[in-house]
Amino acid sequence: MTLKKLNLHLVSDSSGETVISVAKSALKHFRSVETIEYVWSFVKGEEQIDKILEEINRKSDEHNFVICTITDDELRKYLKDNCIKLKIPYRAILSHIIREISSYLEIEKDEKLDLHTEINNEYFQRIEAINYTINHDDGQNIQDIDKADIILVGVSRTSKSPTSTYLAYRGYKVANIPFVSGVPFYVDLAKLKNKLTIGVTIDVSRLIEIRKNRLTSINNEDNNIYANPEKVEKEIKEAEELFKQNNWPIIDVTQKSIEEVSATIIQYFNKMLSID
Amino acid sequence: MTLKKLNLHLVSDSSGETVISVAKSALKHFRSVETIEYVWSFVKGEEQIDKILEEINRKSDEHNFVICTITDDELRKYLKDNCIKLKIPYRAILSHIIREISSYLEIEKDEKLDLHTEINNEYFQRIEAINYTINHDDGQNIQDIDKADIILVGVSRTSKSPTSTYLAYRGYKVANIPFVSGVPFYVDLAKLKNKLTIGVTIDVSRLIEIRKNRLTSINNEDNNIYANPEKVEKEIKEAEELFKQNNWPIIDVTQKSIEEVSATIIQYFNKMLSID
Repeated sequence: MTLKKLNLHLVSDSSGETVISVAKSALKHFRSVETIEYVWSFVKGEEQIDKILEEINRKSDEHNFVICTITDDELRKYLKDNCIKLKIPYRAILSHIIREISSYLEIEKDEKLDLHTEINNEYFQRIEAINYTINHDDGQNIQDIDKADIILVGVSRTSKSPTSTYLAYRGYKVANIPFVSGVPFYVDLAKLKNKLTIGVTIDVSRLIEIRKNRLTSINNEDNNIYANPEKVEKEIKEAEELFKQNNWPIIDVTQKSIEEVSATIIQYFNKMLSID
Repeated sequence: MTLKKLNLHLVSDSSGETVISVAKSALKHFRSVETIEYVWSFVKGEEQIDKILEEINRKSDEHNFVICTITDDELRKYLKDNCIKLKIPYRAILSHIIREISSYLEIEKDEKLDLHTEINNEYFQRIEAINYTINHDDGQNIQDIDKADIILVGVSRTSKSPTSTYLAYRGYKVANIPFVSGVPFYVDLAKLKNKLTIGVTIDVSRLIEIRKNRLTSINNEDNNIYANPEKVEKEIKEAEELFKQNNWPIIDVTQKSIEEVSATIIQYFNKMLSID
């Protein structure tokens, strides 16, 4: 079978995160298509669009497809009209949703967002958050844990690190702390007061499956404690007791995506802010 | 001004990453709306949708909006029909794009994706990648740098860590290594052979701005080397010389988003794979 080739041109007035994510999800359904992604971020003016169109035109003997998340109506129309002229299939993503929310809530969308300042601030906040989170992964550097926005506690392999980095990417400083059976919890609980601390837990059999996978991947199948059903069950039970003693919200991550777990954590975070 | 409230119900048959990202981008344009996000991931059957509808119905005196990325046509229709019945505004994202790609390339979309296995594999790969990347941030643990998929080299504050974690989140194991003026480059270059090593560089004045910001944020404005124009220029020049000596591709990250830089890196990575 020969693969069909597709040049995907992803055009955004912001970082491009959304349009990349949409493209990736859509293309999952075409495994026989070989895709090359061209990402254009921070596109703000017609001259930038002209440059993109020039690039596309240079590949006019290939398959090209444009997906765009530009929200300025005029600029988006400029891209669209030119795509039609060049006979390149084009699709916009956000504009319909923005229009519908606007009509449903009977509220105008904000005009002329100062996206540049906003992106700059978001950018710095995100970088600080990622640096903090990397430095506070797996119980490291707990001396300044009071600077965290969110603290995750849980046994090994409950997605603490991926959840932390996803939240960091969303701008939150996260520290995650492993709970290990038989090892006293070594964090000064007084420092966690007035902080959002979340206990993460998981179904015992699912955790055993994940840990077995982990042992296989590091060629360490002989480790007979890490994935031992009784030990795992005991460890999870002890962890949950610690969570309850401290009144930490508990999230069961079984069958949930990192994104869903993170969304729940953000709900707790916002709720805490609105109480303060 | 009183804020309007909106419950956003984000329904996905996968992790929810795409639908969350779309919602976030759209809501940026309504700063006067207070949004609560409810994320439902891995939604595969009508009984799960019934549960979601029940939850929404319980909030029927509030504003509710459903955005969905379910790609199974029947299941999506089930959600849509029920939203119409309950008079809840509803919007699907991926289906139009999938249909258009399909008709443009004259190719059917893959039916019955084994999303469960795929998500499971992706999930493990992603977790391994994130763990590896966190452990190889900022020049740590270079002894097993040969296990990385991608290596980033650059001076301080050129977005190496955020780019690395974004790529890790996409499933790539990334090591990043700081280049410091006057300090000999301490990585065994032989280990980088046949590896994708990328030199990241940046505009001098932009880097000075970023570093000044950094110094302010850590209350260390007196540091007169880190953001000194001459020193910064010299450091970037030396770094670029190292990149050229080793024939590493160079990416200038000035005015580019982390996502755009990452997309370019992935292009290099795929190109290298197709040559091997």
